[in-house]
Amino acid sequence: MGEAGFFNSELDHLLILRATDWPDSWQDKIRGQFPNLKITGLTVDITKPFEETVPKDILAEATVIALNTTKYLPLPESIPNIKLIHTFSAGVNQIIKEPYITRTNLPLTTSSGIHGPPISEWILLNWLVSSRNYHALYEGQKRHEWINARQYAPSGLTDHVGKRVAILGYGSIGRQVGRIAVSLGAQVYAYTASAKNTAESRKDNGYIVPGTGDPDGIIPVEWHHGTSKEELRHFLSTTKPDHVVISLPLTPATTNLFDREEFKAWSSSSFPSSSARKGFLTNISRGPIVNTSALIEAVRSKSIRGAALDVTDPEPLPKEHPLWDVEGIQISPHVSSVGDEYFERALDVLRINLERLQEGGRLVNLFQRRRGY
Amino acid sequence: MGEAGFFNSELDHLLILRATDWPDSWQDKIRGQFPNLKITGLTVDITKPFEETVPKDILAEATVIALNTTKYLPLPESIPNIKLIHTFSAGVNQIIKEPYITRTNLPLTTSSGIHGPPISEWILLNWLVSSRNYHALYEGQKRHEWINARQYAPSGLTDHVGKRVAILGYGSIGRQVGRIAVSLGAQVYAYTASAKNTAESRKDNGYIVPGTGDPDGIIPVEWHHGTSKEELRHFLSTTKPDHVVISLPLTPATTNLFDREEFKAWSSSSFPSSSARKGFLTNISRGPIVNTSALIEAVRSKSIRGAALDVTDPEPLPKEHPLWDVEGIQISPHVSSVGDEYFERALDVLRINLERLQEGGRLVNLFQRRRGY
Repeated sequence: MGEAGFFNSELDHLLILRATDWPDSWQDKIRGQFPNLKITGLTVDITKPFEETVPKDILAEATVIALNTTKYLPLPESIPNIKLIHTFSAGVNQIIKEPYITRTNLPLTTSSGIHGPPISEWILLNWLVSSRNYHALYEGQKRHEWINARQYAPSGLTDHVGKRVAILGYGSIGRQVGRIAVSLGAQVYAYTASAKNTAESRKDNGYIVPGTGDPDGIIPVEWHHGTSKEELRHFLSTTKPDHVVISLPLTPATTNLFDREEFKAWSSSSFPSSSARKGFLTNISRGPIVNTSALIEAVRSKSIRGAALDVTDPEPLPKEHPLWDVEGIQISPHVSSVGDEYFERALDVLRINLERLQEGGRLVNLFQRRRGY
Repeated sequence: MGEAGFFNSELDHLLILRATDWPDSWQDKIRGQFPNLKITGLTVDITKPFEETVPKDILAEATVIALNTTKYLPLPESIPNIKLIHTFSAGVNQIIKEPYITRTNLPLTTSSGIHGPPISEWILLNWLVSSRNYHALYEGQKRHEWINARQYAPSGLTDHVGKRVAILGYGSIGRQVGRIAVSLGAQVYAYTASAKNTAESRKDNGYIVPGTGDPDGIIPVEWHHGTSKEELRHFLSTTKPDHVVISLPLTPATTNLFDREEFKAWSSSSFPSSSARKGFLTNISRGPIVNTSALIEAVRSKSIRGAALDVTDPEPLPKEHPLWDVEGIQISPHVSSVGDEYFERALDVLRINLERLQEGGRLVNLFQRRRGY
């Protein structure tokens, strides 16, 4: 790496394998920046191994492959000229045992960081649907009824000025939520696995959608850390958050992280009496981080005000599951990251890494084999 | 004004007249800061003149009166000791012909500026309900149905990164909308009545809820101005806004400001082809600023994507009005400013002005008789 003219040979070949059709124009930025790079885009069945769905000679010629998969990678022997594989997916947990990972030291880069805007807008939407009683407005309009303020908000409502927003996992999503929360006048409490005591350790080193997030980690008023349930309970009972946002990976340590004891620690913290100041839980990560029946209990008993779930346990949520009907719980079917910008941003991460390959410099979102992400 | 110990006499008397019951604790900040000030709070029928509902001797003794009215002010002869009247209302257009205004030069201060947080959250809620297809999620949950991404967003959806937000009337509400829009990654275009070419002219000199707004006017990427329909059309067709937010006062010049020609100028601007990039109109000011049938036409013909209206023309909207059922139009019954923080913030404006009366300094939100607001 680092030699000038890395892609100045016409032999260099970027192969883009995609699961769904999308316009070639999305690749124009890359084409403009690397005019000598040959680019092939193929729509393939990514449920099949690449060796079965991509012509052998194209795989053999490929210098860089970009693909949308969470299951397979090409076998090292079928891609002898490869310099980089880039995945359009943010997470790689399903491919870490692939031979490309275990038998080579070649770089794999991910599209982590591209989900901040859509998911944080999903979160904000759900906060406001709850805090501003949107269902009453929507149902009122359906009935053609000009309801009055008392019918609209019988127990009052509050805005987000001065509210405390706890973000578990201060990554690209958490940072964009933090950025928006502060614009509302709220205060952000970051909770991370390891201590972040230095300015350097608080930086976001991954891909950041331009104009979003918290690149330098300067938004939180406090940083807390921990991996145990005890540490989480201490965090909840001392910071008394109005909002808790879960943006953690699912690991053995985070499975069932939020259970009866954690809801208890959170709600026993001395909120002002107003019901609007009770806690609101948001989970956009993975369902099993929250114990479903403990959550139902916490909302039904009004120990918290409600919850917004883009993920559930189990998932998909069966038609007869009681979670669907708990007043105060808003459920959506794992769609918070949906957005037309997805692939353009994933290609932008690729473009940056092609530039780094060519000009030298640290690859962004480089999978670390030792760390496992 | 300006002499030390303005309120150090026990004869000074703050009279708070309120239309609804609220806790005395809301006045604690004032009580703590002005321990020698006598404070009387009365719940009164503000539809009656004060002389009929407040005991004469209390009115006569009052040094400062704070009240929640948009209709009457006490007669100057019944308040011989008055130094300031403060209204909990943001606008004063209904009381500008009262004798207190026309026959004295005594100060009247308003609670302008306190509505930024609730109204901007209402706006954001409505933007996101539309852009992220919330109704499909809500109806899906009611049916207990785990819809897939294609059912959820059949024609795609986009987030706010890079979107252009035009704000007509860059006051306290517009500034807080701007602040949030920028946190989403959007760009703000301010449109004001008069030119704002200097840093000084861009400042917000009114009351600002701490931690919100754009006090120095540094958020907009561009400032435009005008009062005519021609100027508005030019603004719309050159800036091509994804969002237009109306936060203007209702005046003869703003009545019917948004009519067929203005929707045409806006939609004829060359948006990218994606339907999600068509314009979205938000009106939180007064219904008659927008021509209702022109709006219905614009949305039905898809020349704009939709609208969020907290105000309508007529208002309340009759049960049989076609506006209720236009797909893409979200209506709420003039409730965007509802919030538990209302009176605490209005009292905070009063507290600041008591401090300025005592210590000298410009009163905040001082009604200017010559300007009329």
